[in-house]
Amino acid sequence: MMDTSRADAGIQRRVTRRLIVGGVAVGGDAPVTVQSMTNTDTGDHEATLSQILRLSEVGCEIVRVAVPHSRDLGAFKRVCADSPIPVVADIHFDHALAISAIQSGASAVRINPGNIGSMKAVDAVIEEAGAAGIPIRIGVNAGSLAKQYHDMDWPLPEKLVASALEFVEHFESRGFYDIALSAKASSVPATVAAYRMLSARTDCPLHIGITEAGTIRSGTVKSAIGLGILLAEGIGDTLRVSLTADPLEEVLVGWDILAALNIRRRGAEVISCPTCSRCRVDLIGIAEEVEARLIQAPSDLTIAVMGCVVNGPGEAREADIGIAAGDGVGVIFVKGVPARKVSEDQIVEALFDEIKRLDSPRSS
Amino acid sequence: MMDTSRADAGIQRRVTRRLIVGGVAVGGDAPVTVQSMTNTDTGDHEATLSQILRLSEVGCEIVRVAVPHSRDLGAFKRVCADSPIPVVADIHFDHALAISAIQSGASAVRINPGNIGSMKAVDAVIEEAGAAGIPIRIGVNAGSLAKQYHDMDWPLPEKLVASALEFVEHFESRGFYDIALSAKASSVPATVAAYRMLSARTDCPLHIGITEAGTIRSGTVKSAIGLGILLAEGIGDTLRVSLTADPLEEVLVGWDILAALNIRRRGAEVISCPTCSRCRVDLIGIAEEVEARLIQAPSDLTIAVMGCVVNGPGEAREADIGIAAGDGVGVIFVKGVPARKVSEDQIVEALFDEIKRLDSPRSS
Repeated sequence: MMDTSRADAGIQRRVTRRLIVGGVAVGGDAPVTVQSMTNTDTGDHEATLSQILRLSEVGCEIVRVAVPHSRDLGAFKRVCADSPIPVVADIHFDHALAISAIQSGASAVRINPGNIGSMKAVDAVIEEAGAAGIPIRIGVNAGSLAKQYHDMDWPLPEKLVASALEFVEHFESRGFYDIALSAKASSVPATVAAYRMLSARTDCPLHIGITEAGTIRSGTVKSAIGLGILLAEGIGDTLRVSLTADPLEEVLVGWDILAALNIRRRGAEVISCPTCSRCRVDLIGIAEEVEARLIQAPSDLTIAVMGCVVNGPGEAREADIGIAAGDGVGVIFVKGVPARKVSEDQIVEALFDEIKRLDSPRSS
Repeated sequence: MMDTSRADAGIQRRVTRRLIVGGVAVGGDAPVTVQSMTNTDTGDHEATLSQILRLSEVGCEIVRVAVPHSRDLGAFKRVCADSPIPVVADIHFDHALAISAIQSGASAVRINPGNIGSMKAVDAVIEEAGAAGIPIRIGVNAGSLAKQYHDMDWPLPEKLVASALEFVEHFESRGFYDIALSAKASSVPATVAAYRMLSARTDCPLHIGITEAGTIRSGTVKSAIGLGILLAEGIGDTLRVSLTADPLEEVLVGWDILAALNIRRRGAEVISCPTCSRCRVDLIGIAEEVEARLIQAPSDLTIAVMGCVVNGPGEAREADIGIAAGDGVGVIFVKGVPARKVSEDQIVEALFDEIKRLDSPRSS
């Protein structure tokens, strides 16, 4: 796994305070981490843990688990104990559940103080988190704004920010500074505006995301634009892509966003052409197969999968490994040099032979 | 189909000159148009036209068709005559093909003057396009930079921009001003940097895109970030999302990008939650079904598909129509008011009943 610093990417990162979530640093100069959330029944310890393992394998670094009922606490405790990555308890409405989740081993707790009932109840959570030495994420959300803001005639971003900062002030007045902040809306411009304001007004690390972004296509687009704009401006310390889809997709999209901006990369970069009438091989199938195999076998290489002679040889030459396909054949380029020509059905195997060779210099 | 002006979206659009591509305006104050490119065999007139019809149905407004061989010209001519949307001929290497494509009825032609062979050959294309009164897109591409730039020790964006502007100057010195410009790279930061420079230095309308962006997931992410950053800055007059996938996906992603920034919308906005352990219905299935049905039955509404009581009622109330699902049931909200409760298997039908009712006020 390669980490390029944001300075390398030409991005000036906003300075935030540093938190530790179960051993994983968030904020300060820590790399931007990728989060997701389980959607299994939390009470089903095995299903939840098995989903966390799958998420972790594709690069999830912090996982959130909702604890909706006290009957889920036993399973939640086992999940915290067995999870290979830090587990954040997601709690709504019930401060007693938050306290129990902390006692069950959560590495952090996410609450929206606006729906916990009273600030006295919130204070009990602050106290328990302080005693356990774990951070709290204050997660303000357009769909569940605190009552006093709900009917105010302000633009949504101002409401989100005012509500979030009011909570930060309250937490800090009680001596609690281990705070991550989020202020999500389903509107991309509103979310971007809210985070820009938060970033200017607080040094709390920011958990960025577009909430209720939608299904895999539209949710990916909204998250990529919103998080992309923010990250390119140096805003954001940890991220979650929210998709109405398998949470694995959230992790893959999260990494794709970081990679697209040269902030962090997990695995190879695949460049592939959009195909046109010039293309004489099943390039869509080849590119999808290459990408799928690379998720399980991460590599730091840049791999070009190109279908014709217009941009093919150029891109294939620039990449670490490339194929420029012609009529039923492909020319494999290694470090800019044409290495060999193979038939269409051999392209993927030949490509992975070369990837393996480049990734294991000692064995060559 | 609703067009919100970019001013409404809080975006100050860069001023560009206005072109007409087969009746569709590009640049000036024209809406940002969504393009795609066929990947059928151009020589197969029926396959190409049938793909264009499918693209047009999902919102493609200008379509590009590669003409790689002179044997494709007969079919290309029929495609131009029968296509419901303007057809742009994509030509590489051979200026005679470009001239023949113009004579066959192309609404515009895209060339990369750097690979046409000589400026004399380019001039012949300019003359033919001028006589036919159609625009030319100068499409510079990182994978096929003109030779003199290829080995220069400049950053890629500078090379792309210098090459593009040198061509613009040449075209204009010959009295040809009907120019759209593109300068695409597979790197998002490089592409964004190139278009920012182009936008500052020329008033040619800009065709924006990330080239060889990759497969459906990573290509969607790269295109959404790159085009999203540019469009949010007011840069870009027409766009193409390049994906190694069915070109229909390119059109859907293109519209999703415009919608996410409130620039233009085609069809409904679907807000749906990412599901978590609180969700007690098959929300992923429901949201996907709703989205798929809306592609064929565009609507201007905002539709919330929410799985639980945390943000569900809030988002469902804000939307035109929403469902907040509970344990095997859903409450349908219409214009913020709970309308009725239905069982899980009735949710999609009930939702579309309400959509139909809201979209056809005369029939109610």
